[in-house]
Amino acid sequence: MKKTLISNGIFISNKEAKSSIKGCMVIEGSQITYIGEEIPEPIENYDEVIDGTNKLYMPGLVNTHGHAAMSLLRGYGDDLALQIWLEEKMWPMEAKFTSQDVKWGTRLSILEMIKGGTTTFVDMYDHMNEVAMAVEDSGMRGVLTRGVIGLCPPDVQTSKLKEAMEFAKNWHGQANGRITTMMSPHAPYTCPPDYIERIVQAAHDLDLPIHTHMSETRREVEGNVEQYGARPVAHLEKLGVFSRPTLVAHGVHLTDEEIAILKQYDVRVSHNPGSNLKLASGVARLPELLRAGVKVSLGTDSAASNNNLDMFEEMRLAALIHKGVTGDPLAIPAQEALLLGTRMGAESIWLDKVGLLEPGMKADFIALDIDQPHFLPKTDFVSHIVYSACAKDVVDVCVDGSWIVHKGECLTLDEEKIKREFELCFDRLKG
Amino acid sequence: MKKTLISNGIFISNKEAKSSIKGCMVIEGSQITYIGEEIPEPIENYDEVIDGTNKLYMPGLVNTHGHAAMSLLRGYGDDLALQIWLEEKMWPMEAKFTSQDVKWGTRLSILEMIKGGTTTFVDMYDHMNEVAMAVEDSGMRGVLTRGVIGLCPPDVQTSKLKEAMEFAKNWHGQANGRITTMMSPHAPYTCPPDYIERIVQAAHDLDLPIHTHMSETRREVEGNVEQYGARPVAHLEKLGVFSRPTLVAHGVHLTDEEIAILKQYDVRVSHNPGSNLKLASGVARLPELLRAGVKVSLGTDSAASNNNLDMFEEMRLAALIHKGVTGDPLAIPAQEALLLGTRMGAESIWLDKVGLLEPGMKADFIALDIDQPHFLPKTDFVSHIVYSACAKDVVDVCVDGSWIVHKGECLTLDEEKIKREFELCFDRLKG
Repeated sequence: MKKTLISNGIFISNKEAKSSIKGCMVIEGSQITYIGEEIPEPIENYDEVIDGTNKLYMPGLVNTHGHAAMSLLRGYGDDLALQIWLEEKMWPMEAKFTSQDVKWGTRLSILEMIKGGTTTFVDMYDHMNEVAMAVEDSGMRGVLTRGVIGLCPPDVQTSKLKEAMEFAKNWHGQANGRITTMMSPHAPYTCPPDYIERIVQAAHDLDLPIHTHMSETRREVEGNVEQYGARPVAHLEKLGVFSRPTLVAHGVHLTDEEIAILKQYDVRVSHNPGSNLKLASGVARLPELLRAGVKVSLGTDSAASNNNLDMFEEMRLAALIHKGVTGDPLAIPAQEALLLGTRMGAESIWLDKVGLLEPGMKADFIALDIDQPHFLPKTDFVSHIVYSACAKDVVDVCVDGSWIVHKGECLTLDEEKIKREFELCFDRLKG
Repeated sequence: MKKTLISNGIFISNKEAKSSIKGCMVIEGSQITYIGEEIPEPIENYDEVIDGTNKLYMPGLVNTHGHAAMSLLRGYGDDLALQIWLEEKMWPMEAKFTSQDVKWGTRLSILEMIKGGTTTFVDMYDHMNEVAMAVEDSGMRGVLTRGVIGLCPPDVQTSKLKEAMEFAKNWHGQANGRITTMMSPHAPYTCPPDYIERIVQAAHDLDLPIHTHMSETRREVEGNVEQYGARPVAHLEKLGVFSRPTLVAHGVHLTDEEIAILKQYDVRVSHNPGSNLKLASGVARLPELLRAGVKVSLGTDSAASNNNLDMFEEMRLAALIHKGVTGDPLAIPAQEALLLGTRMGAESIWLDKVGLLEPGMKADFIALDIDQPHFLPKTDFVSHIVYSACAKDVVDVCVDGSWIVHKGECLTLDEEKIKREFELCFDRLKG
């Protein structure tokens, strides 16, 4: 098994708050086997020795909600009211998406994500075989799910569900375990109750978690009450969704009682601050969720509502907005924001061996070039990561013990080809 | 006079909303003399011809409030309550600052700013000769002012004012006009009324504008009412501050009546969203200020409360926060955020020839590398600048017709020496 030593680096292990280790890390195969101040074995015992001088090593970022193929709609109809944006811009374009569009849109997003330090992402979309193949080729980690919308005739509902189950079954555990899967009713407002119940049953049958959008806008919550006589949390609880391990995206409009229910069922919440701000959905009650002990993580949502896939920005927004809005400068400290973007992200999607740098964990980590003005002085590197860094500071990326980005270049995908094919897809779509 | 042609580029001129020009731009000496689709003269007439393929050219960013030397305090005591942060962290360190600290702290910030596309900045600090010399050496544009705090004996007040006047007189118009100056009472809560009146008189005598902090926190506004029986706007109005052209920083806590007074006197407001969020000061009423016709621009404030000096981030925050907080997805469109960071910034500090790419304007512009995933598809470049770009996308920077950054490297300052000296300063300061 290949044995790699990284020496002379600064390491943020996430194990102890606010601490960084000046020293070295050893990777054997796909695992971290040592992290500490001293080199544990003679140099000649290693197959690869890397000089980590001027580099900051940290766990790879975990993006717990998105639709990668929608990079094809980046900047396509911004600054519009939500319904006009959806009905006149997003949906007509998405209706035209073929598997080729999903292929190249997803590959472009994966390029952006891995070069920017994201080592794991959650994706909910259509034509998911293309997404799974892109994850396999890229070397990154993906938690994938065919999102189903149930506003269609019963036979179409049935065939979508069958497709979602087949995808989930076929790809779960593939790519050396880098791919896992979930089942996804798109949202309470796009799936009739009986269809949600069938999806829950399928998740039970396959023993998989559920991922869904929930309580993103005030209007959605009001609509749910009008249509079903209950707010989304009670509605999904009643339909048995929370009887499965569940990750909900957004959770912007929640009452105290709803937060208590989420905690009771250990439902995980993917907080998407950039998307929620851009679409004017509101500001989620992140401090209250955390105080209640709900497991929260961060997602970019798609590039159509963000508009980049920079997880450093999501950590920074999580740390900044809630201070400004609550008036409490201690609302979300840098250390907490960093955990939201790494370890809590991994735990939220049931990846227990990801998100920490310590022996026994998967070797999913990234290196930042800290020989730059905005990383000085060498005071508090957790603060610098959250308040000062960006995707473009990432130079090296390792997932499952394999390097997938080196010196800012992607080693696994053909960047030029992806950009070219992506532009051809967009030109065809815009017609 | 040197004549430069940039061809095959995409240009955001700021002249017409949402429009980009695919074509070329000509620079003669310090001015732009042409922008358009066709090359106006035979190639052999140019001293320099630059291929702008895959580059997006836009006006340089204008940062209208900051304290550059405070980069020495980046990450030094984050996530603390405001008074503890100020009293136990910032002030004791700042009290130790020598002119050497200001020299190297400022130079590090200038490096970060120019490499990140900021071509003009406002600086209010002490030891301002060092700041002016740094601006002169860097090639960037600076609007500089010795900020005076009046909580000291009368003779110290007098000597500070004299020093501020001498600095303002000596440096106004220097460095080929790249440096202009202002007079600055630090804030209504740090300067007694009679001292503010003396500073206003000095600004009249020197015919210079005034820059001050105002209405940053709720507590400051309440304190002003307690101490002087008036909110800060009425207080400064009464002291004659607004009889001079004035730029105030922050303006977070303003009533409708106060906004009307600012409009009446044409007082300009530097909106500092990142700093206001991080220090939990609140969210300024930017949409209302703009609707009232107040001239607003963007500032980073210092790296101690931001923690970087990335003006793309301030444009993005301005575009995002107000949507999320007001619930209106049209609150601050990308086009408006871009103007806040460029043309309105320049107008706010009385630089009428900066902030647009058109004939007759100063050649202050930057180039972004758009051959990257997060700039695709080639839809709306204004949207991509505001919602997707970051400081590190900047590759070339030109100020006053001279290149100061090329391919991401600073041409005017010695980066390695600055980083080294900066670290020595920090090591000495932290003791």
